[in-house]
Amino acid sequence: MELKDYIVGMACAARKASVGLRTLTADAKNAALVAMAASIDARRAEIKTANARDVEGGRKAGLSSALLDRLTLTDARIDGMIASLKDIAAFDDPVGELIGTRRPEGFVLEKVRTPIGVIVMIYESRPNVTVDAAALCVKSGNAAILRGGSEAMESSRELVRCIREGLARAGVDGNAVQYVDRPDYEAIDLLVSQTGLVDLVVPRGGEKLIQRVVDKATVPDIKHFKGVCHIYVDETADLSMAADVIVNSKVQRPGTCNALEKLLVHSSVAGRLLPMVKEKMPTVELRGDTRAIAILPGTKPATEEDWYAEYLDLILTVKVVDGLDEAAAHIETYGSRHTDGICSNSSRNIERFVSLVDSAVLTVNASTRMSDGGVFGLGAEVGISTDKLHARGPMGLKELTTYKWVLRGDGNLRK
Amino acid sequence: MELKDYIVGMACAARKASVGLRTLTADAKNAALVAMAASIDARRAEIKTANARDVEGGRKAGLSSALLDRLTLTDARIDGMIASLKDIAAFDDPVGELIGTRRPEGFVLEKVRTPIGVIVMIYESRPNVTVDAAALCVKSGNAAILRGGSEAMESSRELVRCIREGLARAGVDGNAVQYVDRPDYEAIDLLVSQTGLVDLVVPRGGEKLIQRVVDKATVPDIKHFKGVCHIYVDETADLSMAADVIVNSKVQRPGTCNALEKLLVHSSVAGRLLPMVKEKMPTVELRGDTRAIAILPGTKPATEEDWYAEYLDLILTVKVVDGLDEAAAHIETYGSRHTDGICSNSSRNIERFVSLVDSAVLTVNASTRMSDGGVFGLGAEVGISTDKLHARGPMGLKELTTYKWVLRGDGNLRK
Repeated sequence: MELKDYIVGMACAARKASVGLRTLTADAKNAALVAMAASIDARRAEIKTANARDVEGGRKAGLSSALLDRLTLTDARIDGMIASLKDIAAFDDPVGELIGTRRPEGFVLEKVRTPIGVIVMIYESRPNVTVDAAALCVKSGNAAILRGGSEAMESSRELVRCIREGLARAGVDGNAVQYVDRPDYEAIDLLVSQTGLVDLVVPRGGEKLIQRVVDKATVPDIKHFKGVCHIYVDETADLSMAADVIVNSKVQRPGTCNALEKLLVHSSVAGRLLPMVKEKMPTVELRGDTRAIAILPGTKPATEEDWYAEYLDLILTVKVVDGLDEAAAHIETYGSRHTDGICSNSSRNIERFVSLVDSAVLTVNASTRMSDGGVFGLGAEVGISTDKLHARGPMGLKELTTYKWVLRGDGNLRK
Repeated sequence: MELKDYIVGMACAARKASVGLRTLTADAKNAALVAMAASIDARRAEIKTANARDVEGGRKAGLSSALLDRLTLTDARIDGMIASLKDIAAFDDPVGELIGTRRPEGFVLEKVRTPIGVIVMIYESRPNVTVDAAALCVKSGNAAILRGGSEAMESSRELVRCIREGLARAGVDGNAVQYVDRPDYEAIDLLVSQTGLVDLVVPRGGEKLIQRVVDKATVPDIKHFKGVCHIYVDETADLSMAADVIVNSKVQRPGTCNALEKLLVHSSVAGRLLPMVKEKMPTVELRGDTRAIAILPGTKPATEEDWYAEYLDLILTVKVVDGLDEAAAHIETYGSRHTDGICSNSSRNIERFVSLVDSAVLTVNASTRMSDGGVFGLGAEVGISTDKLHARGPMGLKELTTYKWVLRGDGNLRK
């Protein structure tokens, strides 16, 4: 089939499925999620065989051992997917929730939570994202079109087979979850321009992927982009606590989007803080501006590119600043509006930082690694939105819904 | 100046102003709004002179008397703008509002309402929209770039002079409100592609304008598009009430986006309802499908285009259907997701209609003309969003904000 016919056909089928999903009961959706879990459990052998082909392909393609590890599905990881499906089934149904009620003169006005419609998810991640994204979309009454990374294509195809089997067993239109198993980037271009059929595209990945989606999209998108996370340590901070926060932010899991990439330190405390930080994480490569280098001789000079970089690695770039406004201006210029933090004991500085710095998550005296829907207690998430409209930060079930207004009258007329 | 330099300069200035607006107190914003009102009051003569030039230009360009009337600023209409500014000043400041607080183990998590940033408003409307849009943006802490219809250019330019005078008097960066006084469509193309400088574009107007924005936009948009509003009268409806609701929906103000354009009637009541409707609004031209024509001989046959059309005029197209699902499927295909209603006494039918029909506003036994932020008691609005993301239906102060997450810790680390 022509790629265009394939994609348009998929979008039409999703649109049709989404109409059925609108009026589905919570019980029916939960039954589908539980049936998906059962199907994955029953097909472990097939899933692992498909995954072994992906891993073998990845090895031949020279993927790093870290990436190969992320790609590999063990029984424990399959158990994790099954548990995640059951968790999502146990959540309250967001659809139909009464967000607000007003009683203007003579009628009742309700603001009711509803599905968005057809959601395209584009990601470059572990195979479990396929399961979580499908489950969160179905639970929120949306039809999903999934397009995962090509390195996990075989695993995702097998997982989607289980998901659709679960949907069918629960009497739900199987086209509620579809998977784009064509590797072409052109498939993405076509998907994100199906105005009228697709309601939202959620791209989650690197700069190249995001840029492509933004350039080609005519449907709305919510981007899950990079995290160039900063911590600013002011002149009032508890330096011992700040050093622990910085180290945890940087090294606890450096490959994640909420890991620390840049450290900004007030000049009056830099001379004490920076040596402490260096001593606590000797394996981290430090880069710095001239004032940081003066304090830590031998530090590599930071280039202009360093200030923009998301390393996802054991590298940290350090700048000495003369105050909060200079730190905020730096973050405004170089940050990615994901997660930025302050270490301070001045409530005046904290409140100014929190209102001045325009990021999805602001951390106060805490590790940037705490910026996570799970840690926040918000439940399963499809990712962290770095956009400002509709959903910002952790994007879970509620962020996969919209609302409608229902005016219940009794023959009311406009005067 | 080159158009591109003009637009990019404007966007940079707006970005800069938006940083200052983030931390502005409610008092400072309200003082600016009150100063704008004073400036408009003091410059009535200049405003009316500028407006007379617009009206004269419109007359020469052959604008209809209805459009000329909408364009004309009288003292009463200027009083209305001043009152609107004072109303908006009296509203609660949405910025800084605590939307939610969570206390996961060991830290406090706050969800705080914040400005979006830089908002571009594109509209083809009365001059008062310039004042309302500017005021709502400033109140919500956003910098506004306004681009109104060219027929009201002179009036808007004078009003923006008053607005900026008010900002300056209150010590607010005047670039918080800027007006694009170049008539070129290319100015719009440039504005909506300023990724990184502009956060949102709100186009409000006809199909051609909206399509152009959608095609060119790389920044997010929230569209205020047409209203192809339907009412479905089912077999249980109070037909006398339904007829009154239909007549009010159609004739109370036919030129608005929430006026009724299509009537769907259950076949078992069409024979009684349609003659009542016709008798109650003899000046309205009816068009219909074959079954409607059989009931009302002489009715003009509806074409395929009729079902999609937003007439904004005294025309109504009528279809006889055999049930709710047929009505809902028709609305799904031909509707614009603005406002659609049902007249029914069956709670089963009402609930199914309300969950199945995917429109911003669903009216139950009420005129579609009630679909209005003012009638809803939501306060001043920039328009009615026909999109599904971020803001749906009436778009007021809260819909001009986003949120951020603030994690207040005490040295919390990720385990």
